[in-house]
Amino acid sequence: MKQPLDSNALDQLFRTARTFPNWRERPVTDEQIHELYDLLKWGPTSMNCLPGRFVFLRTPEAKARLEPLLMAGNVDKVRQAPVTVIVAHDTRFYEHLSELWPHSPNAQDMFTSNSVLAESTAFRNGTLQGAYLILAARALGLDVGPMSGFDNAKVDAEFFPDGRFRSNFLANIGYGEESGLHARGPRLTFEEAVELL
Amino acid sequence: MKQPLDSNALDQLFRTARTFPNWRERPVTDEQIHELYDLLKWGPTSMNCLPGRFVFLRTPEAKARLEPLLMAGNVDKVRQAPVTVIVAHDTRFYEHLSELWPHSPNAQDMFTSNSVLAESTAFRNGTLQGAYLILAARALGLDVGPMSGFDNAKVDAEFFPDGRFRSNFLANIGYGEESGLHARGPRLTFEEAVELL
Repeated sequence: MKQPLDSNALDQLFRTARTFPNWRERPVTDEQIHELYDLLKWGPTSMNCLPGRFVFLRTPEAKARLEPLLMAGNVDKVRQAPVTVIVAHDTRFYEHLSELWPHSPNAQDMFTSNSVLAESTAFRNGTLQGAYLILAARALGLDVGPMSGFDNAKVDAEFFPDGRFRSNFLANIGYGEESGLHARGPRLTFEEAVELL
Repeated sequence: MKQPLDSNALDQLFRTARTFPNWRERPVTDEQIHELYDLLKWGPTSMNCLPGRFVFLRTPEAKARLEPLLMAGNVDKVRQAPVTVIVAHDTRFYEHLSELWPHSPNAQDMFTSNSVLAESTAFRNGTLQGAYLILAARALGLDVGPMSGFDNAKVDAEFFPDGRFRSNFLANIGYGEESGLHARGPRLTFEEAVELL
């Protein structure tokens, strides 16, 4: 029988983890990026549809393409972070379904015939995979700074010019600088967010 | 300096965790639901906007309201599971921003003036919180079976008749029955899903 993880693990994943604005100089290696994908890929998606795509910007040149598309307050965060990832999704994810969900050979028809369903499925499941990335990075001892302050359409034009992939959110990854943190924001109470029926 | 979690923890969260269709009779307690919320609530959301809402169906009467709104293949899963949660989001999440994001007193204006932004922000961040729920449940030693096979509009009409909250996906929570599992689905390779720049 599985047990709860120990208290330190729950802290590292959730209770004391923070969204860091400032970053130490310690690098994130390509091996760590592989480890990160090899964890996050196991997170569940509807019909194993796996629409998430992840573009890791490691070099000053790659980040320079992103910087003019950011809200001003996010530029320094991206410059400082060892790695910034564009969490995106494949709008034609269903083309992989015959391989990913082989027990329903016609699964892709439900999406090719319904673009609203295809779009919400890509966005929902790509976002789930973005959250798996955040928590997988924390599980690997990394800190994460997710960001929504950027121009999605311009990022799509710059990084996904053929229109197939769509940007969702960004996340800086590395080792956070505690000194840059403000007090933690409050959370909704159980009674505000949960209903028991 | 934070360290990677141990291999058992990475297995429990990601590598050997499965989406269970069949469930043991062992119950999930209200105390566990409180522990679950007290972990997932710490996951990051844009501007700490926290749109996620979670309706836990524990009784046969509560589940009976959901069953006619499910795809046929999901009815038995919901009946068997100790608890089924409706992951939803608050379309007027921005009404809490003055309390949740106090450093920007006018933050809600960007959403009241832009319903497309409000909708995508609620859906994106509510979905992130749904993924935090999945991984928080696993961190607590529980199994999870997320499901998208249901009629969102009918679930909204049944459980959220005033129109403020919107259903996103469902998840069964409990202790999975290994015997009901099929072979695990394949995953996209690193090269298929990741780009390094």
